[in-house]
Amino acid sequence: MKKLLKNGYVLMSADADIKKMDILIEDEKIMEINDEIENFSGKIYDMSGKLIIPGFINTHTHLAMSLFRGIGDDLLLQDWLFNEMFPREDLLNDDLTYYGSLISILEMLSKGVTTVVDMYLFMKGTAEAVKNTGIRAFLTRGLGYDNDEGWKKRIDETIYLFENYHDKYNIKVGFGPHAPYTCPMHKLEEIAELSKKYNTFVTIHLYESKNERELYTFEDIEKTGLFKNNVIAAHCVHVDEKDIKILAKNEVTVSHNPSSNLKLGNGIAPILKMLDHEVNITLGTDGAASNNTLNLWEEMRIATLLQKMNGPEKFKTEESLRMVWENGGYALNEKIGRLEEDYMADLAVIDLKSIELYPNDLNRIKSHIVYSPINKVYATMVGGEWVYYNGEYPKLKENDYYEKFHKLYFELEEKFKNKKEND
Amino acid sequence: MKKLLKNGYVLMSADADIKKMDILIEDEKIMEINDEIENFSGKIYDMSGKLIIPGFINTHTHLAMSLFRGIGDDLLLQDWLFNEMFPREDLLNDDLTYYGSLISILEMLSKGVTTVVDMYLFMKGTAEAVKNTGIRAFLTRGLGYDNDEGWKKRIDETIYLFENYHDKYNIKVGFGPHAPYTCPMHKLEEIAELSKKYNTFVTIHLYESKNERELYTFEDIEKTGLFKNNVIAAHCVHVDEKDIKILAKNEVTVSHNPSSNLKLGNGIAPILKMLDHEVNITLGTDGAASNNTLNLWEEMRIATLLQKMNGPEKFKTEESLRMVWENGGYALNEKIGRLEEDYMADLAVIDLKSIELYPNDLNRIKSHIVYSPINKVYATMVGGEWVYYNGEYPKLKENDYYEKFHKLYFELEEKFKNKKEND
Repeated sequence: MKKLLKNGYVLMSADADIKKMDILIEDEKIMEINDEIENFSGKIYDMSGKLIIPGFINTHTHLAMSLFRGIGDDLLLQDWLFNEMFPREDLLNDDLTYYGSLISILEMLSKGVTTVVDMYLFMKGTAEAVKNTGIRAFLTRGLGYDNDEGWKKRIDETIYLFENYHDKYNIKVGFGPHAPYTCPMHKLEEIAELSKKYNTFVTIHLYESKNERELYTFEDIEKTGLFKNNVIAAHCVHVDEKDIKILAKNEVTVSHNPSSNLKLGNGIAPILKMLDHEVNITLGTDGAASNNTLNLWEEMRIATLLQKMNGPEKFKTEESLRMVWENGGYALNEKIGRLEEDYMADLAVIDLKSIELYPNDLNRIKSHIVYSPINKVYATMVGGEWVYYNGEYPKLKENDYYEKFHKLYFELEEKFKNKKEND
Repeated sequence: MKKLLKNGYVLMSADADIKKMDILIEDEKIMEINDEIENFSGKIYDMSGKLIIPGFINTHTHLAMSLFRGIGDDLLLQDWLFNEMFPREDLLNDDLTYYGSLISILEMLSKGVTTVVDMYLFMKGTAEAVKNTGIRAFLTRGLGYDNDEGWKKRIDETIYLFENYHDKYNIKVGFGPHAPYTCPMHKLEEIAELSKKYNTFVTIHLYESKNERELYTFEDIEKTGLFKNNVIAAHCVHVDEKDIKILAKNEVTVSHNPSSNLKLGNGIAPILKMLDHEVNITLGTDGAASNNTLNLWEEMRIATLLQKMNGPEKFKTEESLRMVWENGGYALNEKIGRLEEDYMADLAVIDLKSIELYPNDLNRIKSHIVYSPINKVYATMVGGEWVYYNGEYPKLKENDYYEKFHKLYFELEEKFKNKKEND
């Protein structure tokens, strides 16, 4: 099936200039981008007055946690974790993670996010939500070691996920060791082997909080062989120069999560230093319980402003856009994050008449995208299919997700209350 | 003219709980808020599924600068100021400031901002834009001292503005000494006298950048008598404990502008320390050239996250909401920032079904407003009149502002280019 996006303005990549161009899409890919494409038979979409940009790539989140949005924002980290989050997570199931993930995905699609990297529990629910919405997703079952039986169960869940969803429905399945303080080094060795065997990616939390520096070193991890795989390391707030060199040498991608890092009191990652060492920096929202929005656009703005603090000239508009676009494509080893021939047709369409984008001067629009985000898009396409279009989600069959999400949510809260009272 | 907002959920103030209530409005004021208001004759608005909150108060901006949005974001401060901003400001006139201000106001109204404090040039243009849109505005002509003639001209412009706009069209006019490094102390004395004589407010930039500490002290300013008036001090990034005590003693309100302070490399104001001394903290976006959005909602989120960095329990949701609501009302000495009987009917209406606000649990919605902003509202009311309603601006007569703004903008850029070439 061919589609032609006609008469729109196009920003092909972070470093490109905005130009009026037509985009020809066949199946999941961009076949041609050119000044004017004629002699086309297929469906034509008039994009006059619209700007077409690459879809945003969110490299770290926990989709199902929209169920927990707004819980205990003002609590100390330990109270929040042990009194609010863990007892609720004990009550989860695939139905709950389906609807939690669905809400998160719909929020992201309405803001132009086309790819997401996830790590959480009951991932079958999440995988089904991905399948039903059409977002591109890199899914992992979070792995921690308690005892051999528990560990095996979670590895088996990962393999189940891999066998049933990998390379289908825009999904890739990888390994998600939670963090070195929950996965001892010999378990990271196991993951290093497994991800090599399955030829897939790994994502892990590293040095999110300062006290982690006392628990493990980057040299320890390097020795496990984990970094030989394609790794996305979330947070990396408390890395020093030696750690940064290890990341750079092993081409580990960092998923920078500035909102979550501020909100949980963890600080600001040294992004400029990492860029000095050519570390690949991408952006993640983290889960809705610690952000609390899945709005990657918001994340880009905050990430940029936090680096500007070091001098307005230190962090340029193009750098910001690369973090949400091509750096993500590079991290995931996919042809995404740019609009080019032979790249996936993963894109977002913006209405140029949005008042936040005034002056509508093509020389200024890239700056507006970073600093004056409209926080909504007109349409979003993943792999050549519209997954959001003018307020609707064309792929999604169910219309009662508001009711179903809330029914399950209020039941969960009721169970949580009863459990607390019985404790 | 009476209006009844019926069946909506209402958040009366930062510290209140959300409850289902009806709001009765007569002329510019709220006459009654109650569980159920019956026997009403007048216009009824069905607010089922909506949340009604106080309108946001933006205590520092330069409205006309939407013309300069996105200029030289990545330049060093001095290059930006002397090569980009000042030469363009030399080309301004009332037509340009009218359309620049109009765009800024429309952007703010679409996000629930109902009050704005402004300081800039060609303020007649700005005052006309305020009048034509219906926002509540506190306007000042920016004052700097070059020579006696220039100073007198600008004071005269302030008086003209006062005589023609003060206490009309939701406008109050005050005095806007730009900063102590552009207004010497004896000129601040003059402003102290004038604002006393006209019984109006003052707004000024204080300690925005670090080097200002070498140019003047807060004791110097205190001696001029300026702080005896109702003063809003923008920025205050580089205040120490002694300065904070002076602000507290004189009940000077601080307009905290976190995005602008980060973007221009000035740093983060010590908000927690100021709160320890009970300084009244409000929020401002600053102008579109240094932010670059007029979205106060975005500002609230960033301000909150930056303080959370000091510990998640240190800055609570209610504190964030007070900054954009009642602290603003207190600063401006107006009955705004709360929804209560006898308060101004300045409010914003939010669609609770916005996906960013899930779970739609009334116990969580305040948190969602701060951390997961929808960045748009369904409707905005100022002084009992709808100024934004479902995508339209009911008070605004002109429909061609997009074309007029851009015509003037591109002419300005053309003149700027010619000027540069001739230099």
